[in-house]
Amino acid sequence: MSANWGTNIELSLFGESHGKAIGIVIGNLPAGIKLDMDEINKNMKRRAPGLNKMSTPRKEKDEVEIMSGILDGVTTGAPLCALIYNSDQHSKDYSLLKECMRPGHSDYPAYIKYQGFNDVRGGGHFSGRLTAPIVFAGSVARQILKQKGIVIGAHIQSIKDIQDQRFAVDINEEDLNQLLQKPYPTIDDHVFDEMQAVIEEARVNQDSVGGKIECAILNVPAGIGNPFFDSIEAHLSPLLFSIPAVKSVSFGLGEDITKLYGHEANDSYYYENDIVKTKTNNNGGITGGISNGMPIIFSVGIKPTPSISQTQQTINVKTQENTTLQITGRHDPCIVPRAIVVVESMAALGILDMIG
Amino acid sequence: MSANWGTNIELSLFGESHGKAIGIVIGNLPAGIKLDMDEINKNMKRRAPGLNKMSTPRKEKDEVEIMSGILDGVTTGAPLCALIYNSDQHSKDYSLLKECMRPGHSDYPAYIKYQGFNDVRGGGHFSGRLTAPIVFAGSVARQILKQKGIVIGAHIQSIKDIQDQRFAVDINEEDLNQLLQKPYPTIDDHVFDEMQAVIEEARVNQDSVGGKIECAILNVPAGIGNPFFDSIEAHLSPLLFSIPAVKSVSFGLGEDITKLYGHEANDSYYYENDIVKTKTNNNGGITGGISNGMPIIFSVGIKPTPSISQTQQTINVKTQENTTLQITGRHDPCIVPRAIVVVESMAALGILDMIG
Amino acid sequence: MSANWGTNIELSLFGESHGKAIGIVIGNLPAGIKLDMDEINKNMKRRAPGLNKMSTPRKEKDEVEIMSGILDGVTTGAPLCALIYNSDQHSKDYSLLKECMRPGHSDYPAYIKYQGFNDVRGGGHFSGRLTAPIVFAGSVARQILKQKGIVIGAHIQSIKDIQDQRFAVDINEEDLNQLLQKPYPTIDDHVFDEMQAVIEEARVNQDSVGGKIECAILNVPAGIGNPFFDSIEAHLSPLLFSIPAVKSVSFGLGEDITKLYGHEANDSYYYENDIVKTKTNNNGGITGGISNGMPIIFSVGIKPTPSISQTQQTINVKTQENTTLQITGRHDPCIVPRAIVVVESMAALGILDMIG
Amino acid sequence: MSANWGTNIELSLFGESHGKAIGIVIGNLPAGIKLDMDEINKNMKRRAPGLNKMSTPRKEKDEVEIMSGILDGVTTGAPLCALIYNSDQHSKDYSLLKECMRPGHSDYPAYIKYQGFNDVRGGGHFSGRLTAPIVFAGSVARQILKQKGIVIGAHIQSIKDIQDQRFAVDINEEDLNQLLQKPYPTIDDHVFDEMQAVIEEARVNQDSVGGKIECAILNVPAGIGNPFFDSIEAHLSPLLFSIPAVKSVSFGLGEDITKLYGHEANDSYYYENDIVKTKTNNNGGITGGISNGMPIIFSVGIKPTPSISQTQQTINVKTQENTTLQITGRHDPCIVPRAIVVVESMAALGILDMIG
Repeated sequence: MSANWGTNIELSLFGESHGKAIGIVIGNLPAGIKLDMDEINKNMKRRAPGLNKMSTPRKEKDEVEIMSGILDGVTTGAPLCALIYNSDQHSKDYSLLKECMRPGHSDYPAYIKYQGFNDVRGGGHFSGRLTAPIVFAGSVARQILKQKGIVIGAHIQSIKDIQDQRFAVDINEEDLNQLLQKPYPTIDDHVFDEMQAVIEEARVNQDSVGGKIECAILNVPAGIGNPFFDSIEAHLSPLLFSIPAVKSVSFGLGEDITKLYGHEANDSYYYENDIVKTKTNNNGGITGGISNGMPIIFSVGIKPTPSISQTQQTINVKTQENTTLQITGRHDPCIVPRAIVVVESMAALGILDMIG
Repeated sequence: MSANWGTNIELSLFGESHGKAIGIVIGNLPAGIKLDMDEINKNMKRRAPGLNKMSTPRKEKDEVEIMSGILDGVTTGAPLCALIYNSDQHSKDYSLLKECMRPGHSDYPAYIKYQGFNDVRGGGHFSGRLTAPIVFAGSVARQILKQKGIVIGAHIQSIKDIQDQRFAVDINEEDLNQLLQKPYPTIDDHVFDEMQAVIEEARVNQDSVGGKIECAILNVPAGIGNPFFDSIEAHLSPLLFSIPAVKSVSFGLGEDITKLYGHEANDSYYYENDIVKTKTNNNGGITGGISNGMPIIFSVGIKPTPSISQTQQTINVKTQENTTLQITGRHDPCIVPRAIVVVESMAALGILDMIG
Repeated sequence: MSANWGTNIELSLFGESHGKAIGIVIGNLPAGIKLDMDEINKNMKRRAPGLNKMSTPRKEKDEVEIMSGILDGVTTGAPLCALIYNSDQHSKDYSLLKECMRPGHSDYPAYIKYQGFNDVRGGGHFSGRLTAPIVFAGSVARQILKQKGIVIGAHIQSIKDIQDQRFAVDINEEDLNQLLQKPYPTIDDHVFDEMQAVIEEARVNQDSVGGKIECAILNVPAGIGNPFFDSIEAHLSPLLFSIPAVKSVSFGLGEDITKLYGHEANDSYYYENDIVKTKTNNNGGITGGISNGMPIIFSVGIKPTPSISQTQQTINVKTQENTTLQITGRHDPCIVPRAIVVVESMAALGILDMIG
Repeated sequence: MSANWGTNIELSLFGESHGKAIGIVIGNLPAGIKLDMDEINKNMKRRAPGLNKMSTPRKEKDEVEIMSGILDGVTTGAPLCALIYNSDQHSKDYSLLKECMRPGHSDYPAYIKYQGFNDVRGGGHFSGRLTAPIVFAGSVARQILKQKGIVIGAHIQSIKDIQDQRFAVDINEEDLNQLLQKPYPTIDDHVFDEMQAVIEEARVNQDSVGGKIECAILNVPAGIGNPFFDSIEAHLSPLLFSIPAVKSVSFGLGEDITKLYGHEANDSYYYENDIVKTKTNNNGGITGGISNGMPIIFSVGIKPTPSISQTQQTINVKTQENTTLQITGRHDPCIVPRAIVVVESMAALGILDMIG
């Protein structure tokens, strides 16, 4: 499994759900950045499990210990390694999972790829828990971006069939700050109650649901990106698809833009005083792979949590027979709320890598 | 602008719509591959313009001249450079486009990024014409993949609101061959007539429409890919987003999987004799970033062609005033049919890069 | 500072001499490798300080703690993170080194590059101590290479003016094993006494000396590598120059080949039974960037340790005046013996990255 | 064979000695650079063959045709593709070279690597002729660097046993300009006569000689580079080893620094007015992988041309027997003079990639 990513900013991600620790190395950080650890921990908590009955009751403190790259709270320019120890390891018997492949999970392809040597406890390196170090790295990236005026925020665009509004064309920093205050950020304040009901129903039924997250990156100047392989989309999409359970990535209106006529889809330019704006932002602030100065808007689709307690049909790779499997333990009936900060973090890392 | 892409297979893409030539260098090709030029030219024609009134009447022969890497029609292992000369250059006056930014196009962000030095004639390096060398490279990749049994095919999933069926769970090579025979491949033979009517209506109205393309990659063995930054999705998505006008990329059911319950979304495994299959393929043959042996299914959303002849509102960056613009010339009212082979080509390049 | 390196095998190096810990992440390791920790620790000891009066008396146990990627002593295929805690931290006052730039060290360029934010304690991330995790990673690489029959060994080619013999054309695994037994490996058993005298003289004079290390990689099959940017030399040289104090890298006879005639420099091929060999190995087993099946031979030149206790002239960047500096503390009068295993480790990592 | 190289500046090198054309794609060029084609052609001529009896009489005009990335002589920011057609192709019979492996050449390892499919005519992609597009790319890089005040020049440090002086510590731009005026640049004007005699003797004896080239890069500001994998040495060395026949790369005094004491090798800093200088430059302007503001000095060792007309012993891979081989045709008895501009070009590309 590859660990490394990035050019102007570098990551190396490691660890397994039930190993000693998970963590990340961040290379090419600028020197002299005073890290705001309160801000970082706030983000870590947004992702952490156990906050309510919509998420797994597993309690991980997700405390970050920085091993290098920092002196007196300020980056030295040297690679920063952050560790998160796994406190909540169970001596549970995982032998069943070595044989019976959980549907919707990485179990079977990983079994083939790593010839059965991969750590299956809690999903090993495939665990959603690996997004914790990504939130740490993303939070560091956000602090660097903030110095350049760039801010990022996201909301729950949908849970199953329940839709929130989409970002308005004139979305601003204040709007994002308001979303950040909400435990379950939606633009329409009432819609989350409906979403919550759907999630609770799934939980009661030992089932799960997914949804979509829409994210905005504000104040990226026009002229960032390139056509083809070095476009903004080409930079952000692999990061977003690296978030476990993400099955779609869209920019601007995404799939919905395919239902418009050209005269509707094209975003008309106009000068507002000296500033170039577009009347609509159907293209999500990007044309030709390059930012046009409007908010960069994208959304990701997250599938229902594959871990469900219902009995499922599957295979036993040891006996090579069809079988049934019931997964016990603690599962999120919906990971969408916890994934918001992960999406924001990936966006921060991708943009920071591009503006170097 | 970056030219290079890839690791196990390497690309370097160059050229402008109205320059001397466009082309591509392909590095790390295996030696000893006898290129089937007929097959390659068949693919080039699937992308070429001017075939009917749904596409631009511009006539480019798209004849490929191979400058290196081939001896007696067989790859030598050395980098292969393929050139396509631009035969249909007009001495048209492009000065208007240096000032008036076409909505929905790269004009304005490119103007900022390259300080006005970029070649605006026909879109320069941003032109959709640059997909011609990609189809060449993709066709070479497909011939290498074919030797490993891997085949690729796509169909028009939708044009504006008109939907084709989606690939069946047991899609096979014969199905893909049948699609390849059709000039406008849809699974439901009748649906293209409706699509054609929508496109024709847009053409008559000096407007344009977009749509979606669904693509299948068959016979990729289980165990290709890795979690996180080296997943199949992380490899394919930047290539797919490098196709001009692509605004969304989805794997499996994509956004639609967010509307299912977990027990529906999970693809149950079963043995069919010795072979592991899944009863549904909602995850598009990929879980945890790794292939599971089922067909890899993905789809892309393509926005309506931004070039429309209707008068549009925009800015003049020289006078710094708001203005209107009418783009004359030859435009595709819908590029989706021509983009099919481009999507297949990108899929081939991405998979070949992964299986090295 | 960049942390990451490699493609088929990936590294991410982090830590500072006097921080909490140093370490390395190794990505893309094959699954199922049973690590021989005794062998690894033997290599760690070959690099460790404090073994005799030729090296610094600083005592670091260099105990490796593996945080991820291993289950029951076997690689899982997931990124392996190895930590070495810094046990021997002193509360020494380093304020002088923030102002007075040590000649021959990274102090001044790092001060400029990182605007004074870099950790100067013990050299920070520039410390030779960072080669400890590299020896760990290299030792893992060697165990993977060993399964393919590839073995690596090196000897002290020179200390200052004292020269050892060079590897014979028929160097074999047994020869390398004998070198590994020696605390100070030289081919000519007697020559190390002379070398030791030179080192001791330098130590007594508060001075230092350098030397050369010649390394052999045996049993690399013919056909590894490529011309130009993907040659064996292009892969190994950046790794070798990443070893602090290395100022030259040579393949085969290196600079000495420039003194031969073409008819002497060319290595004539012959069949010994079915095996292709060359009568001489002046090209060090590589022509055109590709291995020819003969031992790969290279050598590195290591400058005298820049840390010497003599009074030196330098600048004070705070007062912006010329000044003198006397560096107290513990220094190696010659790091060449400890660098041998580092050179071998880099060779292992480079070759493993190439044969993937 | 890999074609691509670089990050901030990208290359893709292609072509074979006797194919249709050789060439290079340069990506990530800044827009708005007016190319001085006279300057470029002057460099092309410094490398071109046939200038006198010290080089091969083969006449290649090495005329560069730019296919993309330029409009009205100014870079557009798009990838620049430059072609050089092969005018001097012979219909000579190359069948012998497919069987009998030339000692010192890539023939045998390439035969194994590419299973006999590689183009052997004139060495194919391994030909020294491939350095022509590199000189083109390097010349473009030099023009960009010149705008930042950075200049590059080299001299013949030695031919066989005949040594020129080395660069003085206070080498300046005027010194480099004087070297550029000389057809065979040496610092000591008289030493080239001796070198010429050695080359002529080799030519008469159907033999060849090699030598060393020392190169200086002036006005690189302090603070470029990083420790370990991102050092100046790690960037430049793979480029320099990509030049055919280069067997050693040294920075500063290189191997000779191993013969000094630490107190001699360390370069003492001092202020000359406000400017930081060192009294000696044994470290070649680099410590800890980072520039210190002094001239960056490096040297490469080039082996004797492997193509000699003397009868040599070798193998026939078809009959699998030992045999003798006499290579007819046109060979350089010494390629060192023609390689000077290639070394300078690689230095320019490496530095431009680092300062982005």
